[in-house]
Amino acid sequence: MSDGRVINFGAGPSALPTDVLEEANKGLLNFQGTGIGIAEISHRSKEFTAFLNEAESHIRTLLEVPSTHKILFTQGGGSGQFSAVVLNLLARHRLLHPQLKDEERVMDYVVTGSWSKKAMQEAGRLGGGRVNIAADARRYSNDGKAFNSVPPHDDYAFSADPALIYYCENETVDGVQFSDDLSSPASFPFEKLTQGALLPLVADYSSSFLSRPIPRLADHAVVFAGAQKNLGPAGLTILIVRQDCIVDVDAAAKLGATPVPITLSYKTLADHSSLYNTPSVLPIYIAGLVLRKMSDGGGLQVYAQSNRQKFEKIVAALKNGEEKDVFKAKVKDGSVSWMNIVFDVPGEGRQQKFLDGADKRGMKGLAGHRSVGGVRVSLYNAITQQDTDKLVGYMNEFVADTV
Amino acid sequence: MSDGRVINFGAGPSALPTDVLEEANKGLLNFQGTGIGIAEISHRSKEFTAFLNEAESHIRTLLEVPSTHKILFTQGGGSGQFSAVVLNLLARHRLLHPQLKDEERVMDYVVTGSWSKKAMQEAGRLGGGRVNIAADARRYSNDGKAFNSVPPHDDYAFSADPALIYYCENETVDGVQFSDDLSSPASFPFEKLTQGALLPLVADYSSSFLSRPIPRLADHAVVFAGAQKNLGPAGLTILIVRQDCIVDVDAAAKLGATPVPITLSYKTLADHSSLYNTPSVLPIYIAGLVLRKMSDGGGLQVYAQSNRQKFEKIVAALKNGEEKDVFKAKVKDGSVSWMNIVFDVPGEGRQQKFLDGADKRGMKGLAGHRSVGGVRVSLYNAITQQDTDKLVGYMNEFVADTV
Repeated sequence: MSDGRVINFGAGPSALPTDVLEEANKGLLNFQGTGIGIAEISHRSKEFTAFLNEAESHIRTLLEVPSTHKILFTQGGGSGQFSAVVLNLLARHRLLHPQLKDEERVMDYVVTGSWSKKAMQEAGRLGGGRVNIAADARRYSNDGKAFNSVPPHDDYAFSADPALIYYCENETVDGVQFSDDLSSPASFPFEKLTQGALLPLVADYSSSFLSRPIPRLADHAVVFAGAQKNLGPAGLTILIVRQDCIVDVDAAAKLGATPVPITLSYKTLADHSSLYNTPSVLPIYIAGLVLRKMSDGGGLQVYAQSNRQKFEKIVAALKNGEEKDVFKAKVKDGSVSWMNIVFDVPGEGRQQKFLDGADKRGMKGLAGHRSVGGVRVSLYNAITQQDTDKLVGYMNEFVADTV
Repeated sequence: MSDGRVINFGAGPSALPTDVLEEANKGLLNFQGTGIGIAEISHRSKEFTAFLNEAESHIRTLLEVPSTHKILFTQGGGSGQFSAVVLNLLARHRLLHPQLKDEERVMDYVVTGSWSKKAMQEAGRLGGGRVNIAADARRYSNDGKAFNSVPPHDDYAFSADPALIYYCENETVDGVQFSDDLSSPASFPFEKLTQGALLPLVADYSSSFLSRPIPRLADHAVVFAGAQKNLGPAGLTILIVRQDCIVDVDAAAKLGATPVPITLSYKTLADHSSLYNTPSVLPIYIAGLVLRKMSDGGGLQVYAQSNRQKFEKIVAALKNGEEKDVFKAKVKDGSVSWMNIVFDVPGEGRQQKFLDGADKRGMKGLAGHRSVGGVRVSLYNAITQQDTDKLVGYMNEFVADTV
């Protein structure tokens, strides 16, 4: 049944392992011998509950999630969480500091690309606090408009006692990612945060979740991720929330905080073990199979090492093309994402020629995001070394043919 | 691959047609010959966009949705809409009547079961208006606590110019449904609404959507439904929204309305043709296949007629059991749901014996909701006449063996 499949380098929804999809086919008609398909079974059945618990346990083990943090499953994607983190963490801040005025509740946003910018705009829309741009990557680009590097540590200006501190670990559109090497100048500046405090640090990990370990996970208040990159189908959002950030939003509303829609309240999700209402059972199922495969396959370090290799292979091919003036990297060295490598193919019609050639060779999804153009190579977990080698071969061939 | 499947009378997630699941198996690995599985393909690809448009068009045709109404796809289930309808319609009311105080913005709730009660509680939680119980079915039960009938038309007290008027067409837990025969005393009292006005009438159709036509659809402001009953997997919510209810929620917030999280704003969904952010592509796919099957199979009247037959068969078996004091219907005649028929099996251990016997015969999901107990027979579209006949046979056999 896997005949005719192409290599999908798309940025999301994105490639899933073929063996997982074949396994899912069985579950779609008959989940674990129940005689009922996974899309049809009650989310409160003992079989599904056990499956959900197993999925949670895989995430806890793979990412070494400490017992201070809950793992929650919800719907609505990263964009849903742009609102939810603001509402929940402003409620928390209200309970901690009931006397402050709205303009004294500061939300620090680190803006390194399109997604963190969108998250910041949502915080501004919702009000109830004041947005502070703690750092802005555009300051370091030539035109002041492009997002093409992680800002240097000196640039960050965090507020005292903010309601939240927000960053997007990997910018899917712009291809900018924080380094996981904390000695790198392109890492997140954890040393500039108040040490030892329960900081409201929020990270959007949508497009790098489970691709490698999360540095300083324990110091985060909320890590969230849409599933549709490394993990599973769209329609599932994973939250890792420190327990002090699971607050009584209704008590906060009585003190003047904005009321939180019931399904966006972290307390609702936590109190009902992610089953307050019907979750997206089928996306959870496929994500659970991917998680099981990851655990069986040796854990996160195996994937991290493989992802590093894939990244280095594509970057080498990109450098080769740059030396011969065929490709032009869009992101500065050190800030280049492992997951989404973006570059231009300058010259009349050449980019289309590159994409068409890839398409002809069975490699799809390589066009850049519609807002920025160019080429984007997404190297999520389901992309194999062999897939990567095929693209590298084509990139080198294209360079040789062009010069 | 469909070997070993049982009959799933569960209340949701619930049975889907076996042939649709078999078709979905192909799409999971290779969607329409693209070489990419449906869970992996970009939601902005031309193939998926065409599929989404087709799904929308089937809904429009099947339900005869007028051009005054948009059809939108979102996530978060019915519970997400409990909040969204309140926020969007209070914003609309604010724009129409900026001068009113919050307590003058009345939200009329018709409470006929657990779900409309929950929706009403959410309106109270969110504030920004005052909840008025326009009718309460509990007044007509013996103990004043059970929901077991639709209130008589005389009982409804609607407000003048409310922000919204809310009802739940079919109460999945309690088995109470409004009649689709508008001359029945158990129908919704449309004649008591202000005629000719653009009323903010909201209906939760989650568990009866696409089981039969929607009476007076054109008079509704919002009809919403979680997909996981008659339509598809959990994780997809369908909205039918009249265009005057798609309002600029940010303009309303400037006038004092509660800010609306961006993904809950109907305007966001409408402005981006349901693709503001990544939708739940896989649940949409399976729902789309179900819709295609319904259209090919002769349209909604065919399903409505079949559903009526299934309902009448089960009710006849229930009456037979009642006459012999083996079963006891929980809902009064006229208000019994076509979709969820609830009854008790009085006598020590008898109910468990009934459920065990059904289970042994390959009929599952018949236990009532955990909050009310009893037996619940859910007869969604995917349940066939043959499935129904099998249950009827067992019910009659159980009665004969018991007396």
